[in-house]
Amino acid sequence: MTIFQLRQQWLQGEMIKRGWSGFLVTHHVDIYYYCGSMQTGYLFIPAEGEALYLVRRSLIRAEEEASADVEALGSWKTLAERLRARCAAAADAPLWIATELDVLPVQLFGKLQAALPGAAWEDGSLLVREQRMIKSPDEVAAIREAARVVDAALEAVIPHIREGMAEFELMALIEHQLRLRGHQGLMRMRAYNSELITGMVATGAAAAVPTYFDGPAGGTGLHPSSPQSSGRALLVRGEPILVDIGCMVDGYLIDQTRTLVIGDLDPELQHAYDVAEQVLRATEAKLQPGMIAEHLYLLALDQVQEAGLGAHFMGYGADQVKFLGHGIGLEIDELPVLAKGFKYPLAPGMVIAIEPKFTFPGRGVVGVEDTYLITDSGWEKLTISRQGLIRV
Amino acid sequence: MTIFQLRQQWLQGEMIKRGWSGFLVTHHVDIYYYCGSMQTGYLFIPAEGEALYLVRRSLIRAEEEASADVEALGSWKTLAERLRARCAAAADAPLWIATELDVLPVQLFGKLQAALPGAAWEDGSLLVREQRMIKSPDEVAAIREAARVVDAALEAVIPHIREGMAEFELMALIEHQLRLRGHQGLMRMRAYNSELITGMVATGAAAAVPTYFDGPAGGTGLHPSSPQSSGRALLVRGEPILVDIGCMVDGYLIDQTRTLVIGDLDPELQHAYDVAEQVLRATEAKLQPGMIAEHLYLLALDQVQEAGLGAHFMGYGADQVKFLGHGIGLEIDELPVLAKGFKYPLAPGMVIAIEPKFTFPGRGVVGVEDTYLITDSGWEKLTISRQGLIRV
Repeated sequence: MTIFQLRQQWLQGEMIKRGWSGFLVTHHVDIYYYCGSMQTGYLFIPAEGEALYLVRRSLIRAEEEASADVEALGSWKTLAERLRARCAAAADAPLWIATELDVLPVQLFGKLQAALPGAAWEDGSLLVREQRMIKSPDEVAAIREAARVVDAALEAVIPHIREGMAEFELMALIEHQLRLRGHQGLMRMRAYNSELITGMVATGAAAAVPTYFDGPAGGTGLHPSSPQSSGRALLVRGEPILVDIGCMVDGYLIDQTRTLVIGDLDPELQHAYDVAEQVLRATEAKLQPGMIAEHLYLLALDQVQEAGLGAHFMGYGADQVKFLGHGIGLEIDELPVLAKGFKYPLAPGMVIAIEPKFTFPGRGVVGVEDTYLITDSGWEKLTISRQGLIRV
Repeated sequence: MTIFQLRQQWLQGEMIKRGWSGFLVTHHVDIYYYCGSMQTGYLFIPAEGEALYLVRRSLIRAEEEASADVEALGSWKTLAERLRARCAAAADAPLWIATELDVLPVQLFGKLQAALPGAAWEDGSLLVREQRMIKSPDEVAAIREAARVVDAALEAVIPHIREGMAEFELMALIEHQLRLRGHQGLMRMRAYNSELITGMVATGAAAAVPTYFDGPAGGTGLHPSSPQSSGRALLVRGEPILVDIGCMVDGYLIDQTRTLVIGDLDPELQHAYDVAEQVLRATEAKLQPGMIAEHLYLLALDQVQEAGLGAHFMGYGADQVKFLGHGIGLEIDELPVLAKGFKYPLAPGMVIAIEPKFTFPGRGVVGVEDTYLITDSGWEKLTISRQGLIRV
């Protein structure tokens, strides 16, 4: 049994508990997660029995890759009959089908509803996201390799950092080194309208410019049509250079931040950087199975308020984001989120990026981010880059 | 009046014809198109009067950038009241609101429906896509600049192409050169589950491996989790190297393909390449206002069948795609598509990438792609790279 079939089996157990007939997986990332192939089509996992991967293109590749029965998608008119044939339900019993309503567009959902008349639909997206929260050893291995690639790329680039270099030039160097080492060139996000271009690489005041992006760092970007991350600002001695980067290896993402500086930071920013490290150390001390995700955020809030840095934590003023970290895997924005309202107890196999940062408008962003695996006894850091402020 | 307000005005004219109360623009690309800002939130364009941009983050940047009244999104409870206040309708008349159901996820649509009880909803996505089909001079200028960047990057990379170089190394070089020249690092696509990583750069048999991607070229990719474009295949003398690349400048995309070879192609592939050029020349001869989009595809089909290459055109066998070209602008997959069923008459301001290609399983893909502006008198080629097969 492949890891993909084991995932289907877990989902089937949950479906049986709920009385669902099956799960029609439509999102390419979820399809890959459950069958190991990412061709165009639909993966139907019945509550019992073999999964059916209905593929438009490329059938050949789906047949080579997928842990599922593969058939050509063919006519939508045959969809109802073919899905029903996979279900244990009596021929006239109504189907109860889950799918990912957090990402599925309304128009396509309408087409699916019309193709499966009489079916009841259920939003299965949270269940999928909760299953994906716990990583298997192969997933951890891929994330570990991505961490190695990010570190190697960062180290390869550091000797080339110079005053007067533009943010986008630094980003171009980083991306080149990442790609040479196996980065697949995408940073997938699940949330509607979300995009990420390798990460947030920005310097001084430009890094502190707020963005729409649901993260603590900002950046001007090159143009209002992609208003985040690297722009044309030049690296200046004494300013914090935020290098918040990731990459994708074998489908899995890593996320890591280091603060760099040419020369020295001014004492106030250096102090804030030190507090970010202290927050990360304090969080590590609490990072273990059973700890409630939101508590880590609330504890960090207390700590930064005591340090007098509450107004600068994870953005500034109205543009603050209200989290300390996030799950990561096939997508950047996975569960659990270390934020208020997320009551998940940490569990072995979770992979979480933790990123305390402080924003000083007009001056810059300082902080650190590492990605952690929750283990039976606590945690293991997956990111391997050198600790501390990096002086160039 | 800004270009963004002119676009709102055109949309308002269409809404008045249809009796819609307003358009709730939710997709980040469309929000940018209509107001010049891409922050997180919703842009409401009433059938008459000023547009309202309700912004979650970053309010500051939205205020600086947007051609619309900007307010904090605030509580969803106030949404109905605030949208109604923008509409000319009587206080008790039901609202009839269009939005982009081709991209809006079901879950978020449900939230919007709950926030606006009693509103009737309309799928406005086709209207938006049809408006965006006709580019304004500023949009054409951005696409022209993207074309210049792609050409400069290609020329910068050509001298470094060597036998034994891996596809992904060539892609990394291209991306580096694109980014140094202003490429924003994204290739936006609208269709669900669609992704593009700079383009399709692949060699020999690997380029002919079919993909899920809705385009004629393939590529193994680095892993089944991103199964398209560059992989680990090495460049070999005499094999066609397909360099189908684009970039984004000021939000706008370009798409261009050149076939490269180290040494010479074998006669059969050289012949197919020549036919691809002939198809492009024949298409250019028909490219003018009034020509129906699908006819260009059907004429090309006739031409390649006469040349005995029908089985290889735009992919091979079951993995053929059934189009000759596509509109391009803020997204790669814009209207019109040069494919059966697309009855749009060409009109001045349309920008269309035309990409005749031939796939030979086990041997490679050859072809050419240029991007054209439809003008009053015919067309202008926006891509500027050198013509013909490029011998390295």
